Amino acid sequence: MKKIDLNCDLGEGFGPYSFGQDELLLPYISSANIACGFHAGDPHSMRDMVAKCLAADVAIGAHPGFPDRLGFGRRAIQVTAREIYDYLLYQIGALNAFVQAAGGELSHVKPHGALYHMAGNQPELAEAVIQALLNLNPRLILFAQSGSLLLELASAAGLPVAAEAFADRTYQQDGSLTPRTSSDALIGDAQFALEQALSIVCEERVFTPEGAGVPIHADTICLHGDGIHAASFAAMLNEGLRSSGVSVAAPGRNA
Amino acid sequence: MKKIDLNCDLGEGFGPYSFGQDELLLPYISSANIACGFHAGDPHSMRDMVAKCLAADVAIGAHPGFPDRLGFGRRAIQVTAREIYDYLLYQIGALNAFVQAAGGELSHVKPHGALYHMAGNQPELAEAVIQALLNLNPRLILFAQSGSLLLELASAAGLPVAAEAFADRTYQQDGSLTPRTSSDALIGDAQFALEQALSIVCEERVFTPEGAGVPIHADTICLHGDGIHAASFAAMLNEGLRSSGVSVAAPGRNA
Amino acid sequence: MKKIDLNCDLGEGFGPYSFGQDELLLPYISSANIACGFHAGDPHSMRDMVAKCLAADVAIGAHPGFPDRLGFGRRAIQVTAREIYDYLLYQIGALNAFVQAAGGELSHVKPHGALYHMAGNQPELAEAVIQALLNLNPRLILFAQSGSLLLELASAAGLPVAAEAFADRTYQQDGSLTPRTSSDALIGDAQFALEQALSIVCEERVFTPEGAGVPIHADTICLHGDGIHAASFAAMLNEGLRSSGVSVAAPGRNA
Amino acid sequence: MKKIDLNCDLGEGFGPYSFGQDELLLPYISSANIACGFHAGDPHSMRDMVAKCLAADVAIGAHPGFPDRLGFGRRAIQVTAREIYDYLLYQIGALNAFVQAAGGELSHVKPHGALYHMAGNQPELAEAVIQALLNLNPRLILFAQSGSLLLELASAAGLPVAAEAFADRTYQQDGSLTPRTSSDALIGDAQFALEQALSIVCEERVFTPEGAGVPIHADTICLHGDGIHAASFAAMLNEGLRSSGVSVAAPGRNA
Repeated sequence: MKKIDLNCDLGEGFGPYSFGQDELLLPYISSANIACGFHAGDPHSMRDMVAKCLAADVAIGAHPGFPDRLGFGRRAIQVTAREIYDYLLYQIGALNAFVQAAGGELSHVKPHGALYHMAGNQPELAEAVIQALLNLNPRLILFAQSGSLLLELASAAGLPVAAEAFADRTYQQDGSLTPRTSSDALIGDAQFALEQALSIVCEERVFTPEGAGVPIHADTICLHGDGIHAASFAAMLNEGLRSSGVSVAAPGRNA
Repeated sequence: MKKIDLNCDLGEGFGPYSFGQDELLLPYISSANIACGFHAGDPHSMRDMVAKCLAADVAIGAHPGFPDRLGFGRRAIQVTAREIYDYLLYQIGALNAFVQAAGGELSHVKPHGALYHMAGNQPELAEAVIQALLNLNPRLILFAQSGSLLLELASAAGLPVAAEAFADRTYQQDGSLTPRTSSDALIGDAQFALEQALSIVCEERVFTPEGAGVPIHADTICLHGDGIHAASFAAMLNEGLRSSGVSVAAPGRNA
Repeated sequence: MKKIDLNCDLGEGFGPYSFGQDELLLPYISSANIACGFHAGDPHSMRDMVAKCLAADVAIGAHPGFPDRLGFGRRAIQVTAREIYDYLLYQIGALNAFVQAAGGELSHVKPHGALYHMAGNQPELAEAVIQALLNLNPRLILFAQSGSLLLELASAAGLPVAAEAFADRTYQQDGSLTPRTSSDALIGDAQFALEQALSIVCEERVFTPEGAGVPIHADTICLHGDGIHAASFAAMLNEGLRSSGVSVAAPGRNA
Repeated sequence: MKKIDLNCDLGEGFGPYSFGQDELLLPYISSANIACGFHAGDPHSMRDMVAKCLAADVAIGAHPGFPDRLGFGRRAIQVTAREIYDYLLYQIGALNAFVQAAGGELSHVKPHGALYHMAGNQPELAEAVIQALLNLNPRLILFAQSGSLLLELASAAGLPVAAEAFADRTYQQDGSLTPRTSSDALIGDAQFALEQALSIVCEERVFTPEGAGVPIHADTICLHGDGIHAASFAAMLNEGLRSSGVSVAAPGRNA
């Protein structure tokens, strides 16, 4: 039986601000990446979201980002490997305290935004991420983009990893994501996104505009939590996968 | 043989800024309270200071404060118990990640500045501090002011505690510290401060301006790390205590 | 002909976060208090909101607050008069740059949240606010609570002032607002709030639970922009006032 | 008679932290670039430094930077032109309020760190800086690197400009600064730095390692304020220039 994880970034509010449809999404995902107070989130949203994930039996991951609230962690910043190492330990540790105090266990780590992309393909930054997890807790599962250098290096270093693919982003013939600057980067049609997810999970191939498709392996599929249809899309994807015989469960967990 | 801990706030720089004489003080103290990035400190200073404490065999504590860099955590903020609980977990967890990644163990927690004073005598805030430690790790030693409500409640709740006294602050007849607004709040004379420390440790009494002295119990004495003579004063105090037959060691450790 | 100003706090988003129904409210208010980047707002929201106010012919005011995003500027912080003076100049100056660059003119200043209340009744803090305006630009109109010490002192110092009252808050027999901790602090019924506004403007009296009413003078009435019915309430209030023969215009402007 | 401006970045402390030798430098410089609270500085340091510049008759400039305290504004951030425009207006406006409240006049603007370099040679970002000054106050003098695109575009747009050169940095044969990553980027010898300054001012040529020298025009020379010998170097440079018949004065002022 095929199995896939559905992950989503949650807890990305701050102070008086809410963001996304956190509670509506929880029934349909198996892993939550919780913002840790640098690009988004604060101590209160972290405690709150940890409690909700435990109640919904959703695996909890840290979602560390750059210290850039104004840019929501999406802007590239010229950081050193040492800075990334320190940013990761700080944020993972902070979230872990809430998980531990609530009697849970931290499952995974998924870098956010510009950190995800920069550490994904720059060897020195990738090594900083890997070293942080090795030193802190080598049982933490690293979520990284399918096909990325980070995924390859982390796996070679002995870390448990989960390869991530996207249901609602288009892919290019070389297996990379179509840049967001391109008009056809996003898949707006939910049915088409479900078909892409099924193809990724069951065929280990993803469509490309040229139609040929490219091979891809994914352990987890990323859902976006901030669109107006986020929850209904998550429900549709979850149910579509299950009704096609795919079980939805976090890495290392049974469905 | 009498024993006392000497503690000092360290790692209170930020970004490009240094603060205090951290490295010069390490040889003379037994416990370090490391700033956790709210009132002072950042991920880099935390990693750096943890490594230095481990190298110097100084017990490591978290020094959480209010999220108020501009006021250095010294200004009272009208917070709720829930906010304090969350601030503590976040900061202790962040520091703990650096300690754990470096192969050490977190020993204690000492609230900073306005948080120290507010949680010291307001029952609801004291309970928030206690609950955070109970939920996160009930082996963490809570440093609180000798005679404070926080110390009493934490002890009653079963937490290990260390009663803190000050060598360079004057005390009033009711056992409280002379407010800093008073001209005789601080003890500038190092020899007199040493005598006060010896009196606290060996006689369990502290001088008062009236001369009578009041009973006091202390497990740890706080040194200030940011004056120009901080290091030489720490050396003098450490040596003065030892030469009077008092061993200097962190709570729970042998000299 | 009676005249009143309707003011509302706008531009209180931050980075990726929006807050309130800014654009829907603009047609119904005569003065906007724009957050200046301390408790809320950022350089982008400030530029954006200034442009929208100019387009809607709404008078622009600075809405400075405490440097406390987590608490949205609503928590009392133990600040000095000097700190308040500096916080005000910084924030007013920042907003003024956007107004000036857009070819407009800054009309007024309304302190936010805890700053509004603390400066409203503590003489030393009130003087700091007054001194900031006197030194920076003594033509700026200070919005302060009707009956407050700040209003009285500012007026005595020669500053133009606008006395503020609330349509949707209940008043006590001594003329003060019912504390928010009380269950009847807020007026949820829009029709009743309109009646209170009309009573304040036309009778210079405000209802009290005891029914006697107390005298009050108001130049401006505060609307809240963040409830779900904020815009429809603003429309109803604006139209209710106008249809009762009250003109709605910013202080110093004709209807 | 030859004339040159000597400028220095001042007011770069924050909260409890000081930075550099601000007061010792003031007697020897003619222009101060005051940090505006994004990369460094806060409302208190800004008020304080404005007062000291006015007392010392030093021309006051805004020194806006990226919102990156941890990186001191030195890290490149992937910003848009619109973001730069907004960052500049906000910071210049904030500083201007302190200048205006103190009865002074803002003279110039010098971008800081990564913003200086990125806006210096990227056309879209340069235009954002220029547009901010044109819209806010076209009499503000823009300090930009001699030979930079920003300087050229600003001048073409009609802004008053000051071309900046460095006494203590080495230049390459193409007229650019030797990158800091190179071992010979900095000039440690004060006498040699003075000679470079004199060559720049009097000969309009700057030395290069190859010895040929390259033509350069400078209206202002940048001093660094944070080294241990910063003040004595400033004194030496100021006196060396004067004794060689060069007058030291801010752009637009007489010596």
